[in-house]
Amino acid sequence: MPRPRNDTFLRALLREPVPYTPIWIMRQAGRYLPEYNQTRARAGSFLALCRDPDLATEVTLQPLSRYALDAAIVFSDILTIPDAMGLGLYFVDGEGPRFERPLRDESAIRNLAPPDPTGPLRYVLDAVAQVRRSLRDELPLIGFSGSPFTLACYMVEGRGGTDFATLKSMLYNEPSLLHAILAVNARAVAAYLNAQIEHGAQAVMLFDTWGGILTSSAYEEFSLGYMREVLSALPQRYGGERIPTIVFTKGGGLWLERIAASGCDALGLDWTIDIGAARMRVGNRVALQGNLDPAILLSSPATIEKHANAILQAFGHGSGHVFNLGHGVSQFTPTNHVEALVRAVHTASPPYHV
Amino acid sequence: MPRPRNDTFLRALLREPVPYTPIWIMRQAGRYLPEYNQTRARAGSFLALCRDPDLATEVTLQPLSRYALDAAIVFSDILTIPDAMGLGLYFVDGEGPRFERPLRDESAIRNLAPPDPTGPLRYVLDAVAQVRRSLRDELPLIGFSGSPFTLACYMVEGRGGTDFATLKSMLYNEPSLLHAILAVNARAVAAYLNAQIEHGAQAVMLFDTWGGILTSSAYEEFSLGYMREVLSALPQRYGGERIPTIVFTKGGGLWLERIAASGCDALGLDWTIDIGAARMRVGNRVALQGNLDPAILLSSPATIEKHANAILQAFGHGSGHVFNLGHGVSQFTPTNHVEALVRAVHTASPPYHV
Repeated sequence: MPRPRNDTFLRALLREPVPYTPIWIMRQAGRYLPEYNQTRARAGSFLALCRDPDLATEVTLQPLSRYALDAAIVFSDILTIPDAMGLGLYFVDGEGPRFERPLRDESAIRNLAPPDPTGPLRYVLDAVAQVRRSLRDELPLIGFSGSPFTLACYMVEGRGGTDFATLKSMLYNEPSLLHAILAVNARAVAAYLNAQIEHGAQAVMLFDTWGGILTSSAYEEFSLGYMREVLSALPQRYGGERIPTIVFTKGGGLWLERIAASGCDALGLDWTIDIGAARMRVGNRVALQGNLDPAILLSSPATIEKHANAILQAFGHGSGHVFNLGHGVSQFTPTNHVEALVRAVHTASPPYHV
Repeated sequence: MPRPRNDTFLRALLREPVPYTPIWIMRQAGRYLPEYNQTRARAGSFLALCRDPDLATEVTLQPLSRYALDAAIVFSDILTIPDAMGLGLYFVDGEGPRFERPLRDESAIRNLAPPDPTGPLRYVLDAVAQVRRSLRDELPLIGFSGSPFTLACYMVEGRGGTDFATLKSMLYNEPSLLHAILAVNARAVAAYLNAQIEHGAQAVMLFDTWGGILTSSAYEEFSLGYMREVLSALPQRYGGERIPTIVFTKGGGLWLERIAASGCDALGLDWTIDIGAARMRVGNRVALQGNLDPAILLSSPATIEKHANAILQAFGHGSGHVFNLGHGVSQFTPTNHVEALVRAVHTASPPYHV
């Protein structure tokens, strides 16, 4: 299996020399793109869009037609696994994902089992395979999942973005129940990412959106430990190529050294940490991905360029940096601002690679 | 002016020897206390309660009757200053504070002026003086304010807890406007805290609830810089006694070294950082206040005791630790759980001070 023609993203993740700093953007196929909104309207809903491999492929490719991005990421959701477990994923407009049947009693938890990726998650694998074919080895394709802990947050709480009182009550009062959920989730995520790799994903990313709500020791016990388990169940190589892994714990800046030692190839950084300080802390153990404040994309091309340059400079010379935002792109981002960012990174980064 | 009979809190903030680790609890006069809810019902609303010095004094003292806490904090709100500027503070049940007239144009910003603390903020000073008299020099009294940046978040956005798109748009597009607000806020906060000290506050705390949404460099420019300005405008001593200062930036764990160098005497820590790691980073430059996850108070006395002990042990030997939560106490906390925490800290901490 050959590397894609543009392999700067994969090379940067593996800290191999690159001619410039590659860039992709979390949620790059999203509501800031008018063509995305048209396809989504045709699909009827976000979930219908995810579940239709043709349409999911279409929107995955849309940002690549507009911008000189260096990677594709399959259009999907971080919560497909608990949905496949029967919890009933749905979306409330403007409020993010929810579950119809959150886990609230021990019997429901004891009955959890990892879904067969080729069963109820078939639609994701089909989208991965179809996107991979459509990319014709021009660009690498990223597969992903929510982390075991982040899945558990939504599974127990029924939603995100709260104070997670139910989840934390379980964590402190009945940790063995939470561990039971996490053990199933870890097996499920490992099987799911393995299946995505088998269907064409050339790098995989764990989105640990809620790990940052934990104490330092609870993060180790309930989030990082299970991500480590997932990472160790992924193949070192597939089809002769190394499949790089990225771990992104939002709000995890305090724990970078530990995440860097988890077995991943790269750390996703949110915007609160200086990427130069992060590099000093993790040295050359892992690559870094990030970390422009998504709010900067709402400003102006000149301001975007200034802040992009500042991040490139803070990271400094050498490979090991994948440019990205520190969180998903806002739906209110003007499309020409994304263009300005991609151009700025590609124009200003080559001197850091000579 | 004598130190209070129980001065462990003040001594710990100044890293003087203490016989045990003192404890107080953020939002200790709050909705988890039935007697608080009765007084609040009599007042009619949270704001009416804040604005009535008799009732504010009553609720300030309530947790001190129940628990062996080592400090009182005047019952008030972090947003009294912008309210006194005419922005119209109000509360939506279960959703936190809002402003009727957020700052949305340059002329409104150019017209901002620091309120005279003895004018529209008189009710706070009266409450401070009345609580201080009621304490009869038994316990120290804490005064406080929102930080200049946190006030600005609410003043611009009209509310908290969002993605702060309006605030960040101003920060990145028209930073001089935000600086204009912050300069006024810094003068206002300094005058307000000085007045609280003159009326009896024996320590003061800056609540920087939203500094953690910023990038590392924006935190310096828009939050920490203005807190430094406030701190430098406070008296080194008042009535012969040092008035210790506490800075609490929620989500500020990455920036502890810089906060510790701001001129404050103590850092407030949220629950995400290990207090032992924090102490290693800031050495003996400042005291540390925190940092139990408030969700732990919803568990059980035995679990609370275990986690309290872990924090005492992580901090280790010597003075310089004020026990507290990492954020305000939840309204759903059983009152006997707070008692268990106070007892655990007082019982388990003496060996760390011999």
